[in-house]
Amino acid sequence: MEQKKLKLADLAKLAGVSTSTASRALNNNPVIKQQTREHVQLLAKKYNFSLNTAASRLRLQKTNVIAVIINLDAHTEQSIDDPFLLKVVSDINQAVNRRGYELLLSNSYMAGDDWHGYFIDGRRADGLIVVGQGKQQQNIDTAAKNGAPLVVWGDPKTPSNYPIVGSNNYVGGYQATMHLLEQGASKLLFLGDSGHAEIGERYRGFNNALEAHQPKGVAKLLKIDITSQAAYTAINNLLRGEGLNFDGIVACSDMVALGALKALKERYVSVPNDVRIVGFDDIAMADISHPSLSSVKQNTREAAKLLVDKLLNQLNGEECMSQEVEIELVCRQSSQ
Amino acid sequence: MEQKKLKLADLAKLAGVSTSTASRALNNNPVIKQQTREHVQLLAKKYNFSLNTAASRLRLQKTNVIAVIINLDAHTEQSIDDPFLLKVVSDINQAVNRRGYELLLSNSYMAGDDWHGYFIDGRRADGLIVVGQGKQQQNIDTAAKNGAPLVVWGDPKTPSNYPIVGSNNYVGGYQATMHLLEQGASKLLFLGDSGHAEIGERYRGFNNALEAHQPKGVAKLLKIDITSQAAYTAINNLLRGEGLNFDGIVACSDMVALGALKALKERYVSVPNDVRIVGFDDIAMADISHPSLSSVKQNTREAAKLLVDKLLNQLNGEECMSQEVEIELVCRQSSQ
Repeated sequence: MEQKKLKLADLAKLAGVSTSTASRALNNNPVIKQQTREHVQLLAKKYNFSLNTAASRLRLQKTNVIAVIINLDAHTEQSIDDPFLLKVVSDINQAVNRRGYELLLSNSYMAGDDWHGYFIDGRRADGLIVVGQGKQQQNIDTAAKNGAPLVVWGDPKTPSNYPIVGSNNYVGGYQATMHLLEQGASKLLFLGDSGHAEIGERYRGFNNALEAHQPKGVAKLLKIDITSQAAYTAINNLLRGEGLNFDGIVACSDMVALGALKALKERYVSVPNDVRIVGFDDIAMADISHPSLSSVKQNTREAAKLLVDKLLNQLNGEECMSQEVEIELVCRQSSQ
Repeated sequence: MEQKKLKLADLAKLAGVSTSTASRALNNNPVIKQQTREHVQLLAKKYNFSLNTAASRLRLQKTNVIAVIINLDAHTEQSIDDPFLLKVVSDINQAVNRRGYELLLSNSYMAGDDWHGYFIDGRRADGLIVVGQGKQQQNIDTAAKNGAPLVVWGDPKTPSNYPIVGSNNYVGGYQATMHLLEQGASKLLFLGDSGHAEIGERYRGFNNALEAHQPKGVAKLLKIDITSQAAYTAINNLLRGEGLNFDGIVACSDMVALGALKALKERYVSVPNDVRIVGFDDIAMADISHPSLSSVKQNTREAAKLLVDKLLNQLNGEECMSQEVEIELVCRQSSQ
């Protein structure tokens, strides 16, 4: 015997709420009081009612989905496999979940160039979190201009029409460099591509620390891609070509620092006795490495919360500003 | 002046195709010939037509989304931050994209216990990929019984009503152990929780290799959680309590191996001279570690492709079997 299928309106009537409240309650939307949510959900279970979410989304004009776009530079070998990027995505996922949304993991390959059309008009997501400002900002600018609610993980100092959340990269670079100088290093290498917005800020801090310290240190910039392999190759080439003419390294990421560390260890250069190293990001591996790696910790959990808060505020029509997240130098064996 | 909005049916007529073909073409569904897709998309651009994806999903009864559920054991400290889990998710994301689908990143926190109701009835996704069979399989069993199209990353030898794709863990454990014995190690530790399906298979291979080798080695099992920290603590305690009474380690993951390596190096135990180590997974860090870490490579890219293929075949009504992916022992400095 087939029962007549219960409609949402019927369920709402049974629960004594409006259909939109019933729908939100079934979607577990935190906007609705928990008691109401549980009441509606219990009735739904009792009457074997299954919410058609796609239909409910149409009705509410909401998807309850936030798309995260991994926006890598075209000319980098850095990939979505990068431990720091994955940590950012994982922290965003948790922050998104806590607000009752789900995360659609996307990238420029899927989304093409018209992000507003693809995600927002296409009803794939209510808003966008772009991870990686990179060197190319055109897709972001266009999507924002077309009215897509969006926030960006990047360099908050960059002038923009959308909120950017990221670390205080300048202070991070400054503190890492000052720490090495204070530990006695005087011939410093900066490993990273200073043309990238966030890394450029770190390099600015690096140079200003060198200027501020007495006696002033000697500095050299090695513009390399943000991968372990690039750092490993660059340090190997440098040691082969010029010998050991440096005693400190500020690396633009921990992966870069770990690649440099490997090259040094293979050539029996002692870290930290001959060369002191500080990385950036404080990924889990920094602590497991031997010697353990000093690093500028990016507070990705706090940043993820801010990104999601600012995006949801935009959805509520509030204006949002860029914001810097404080960083912290974590000193381990590699620098002291 | 406002134009009357073009409907999908109008666009389909203009393109000379059915509305469902037009919708699929706009969704860039690879089922439709590329020429047709481009033709329809060009017309859509010309007439400023924007596809309402939610409506189109209702029409096609499809979401074009695949949900990936990270299914961790309740009693592990392993988290979604784990580099190997993130590598699996990243490879699945790429495989999903290549078939024209998008990835919804979920977990048991969002999905609750009724995965079929939440994802399939709720029209959040067309099918599920469960990463991590873990010790608890009830949610998976229930979802499969309720008819949810699903595939699992886990131990393919486990009897199940759904396809499981995973490595040949038995052979991996066997090869890693035989390699250590052949290199001269004879007092072996196995680091990992053998109650976990995949790790149990590796441990079975470990024991069978010990049986097969002459002279037979001595073995000890340290049942620890699948984290670096657990391994670091366990090896430290062992060295403190019993001294160095082993000369080889088979670790259930590279993270576990790296934690053990750190503890050994801090106590000036030489790897590989005093203790030889082999990890499992072959994450990027295995190659960057010093000494570089020998590891049983899990072919996650191939596995991701199989998972997606088998899921989409299920959606087409085809029956699918569990399948093992070949593994490969990668020998580096830590074991020879």
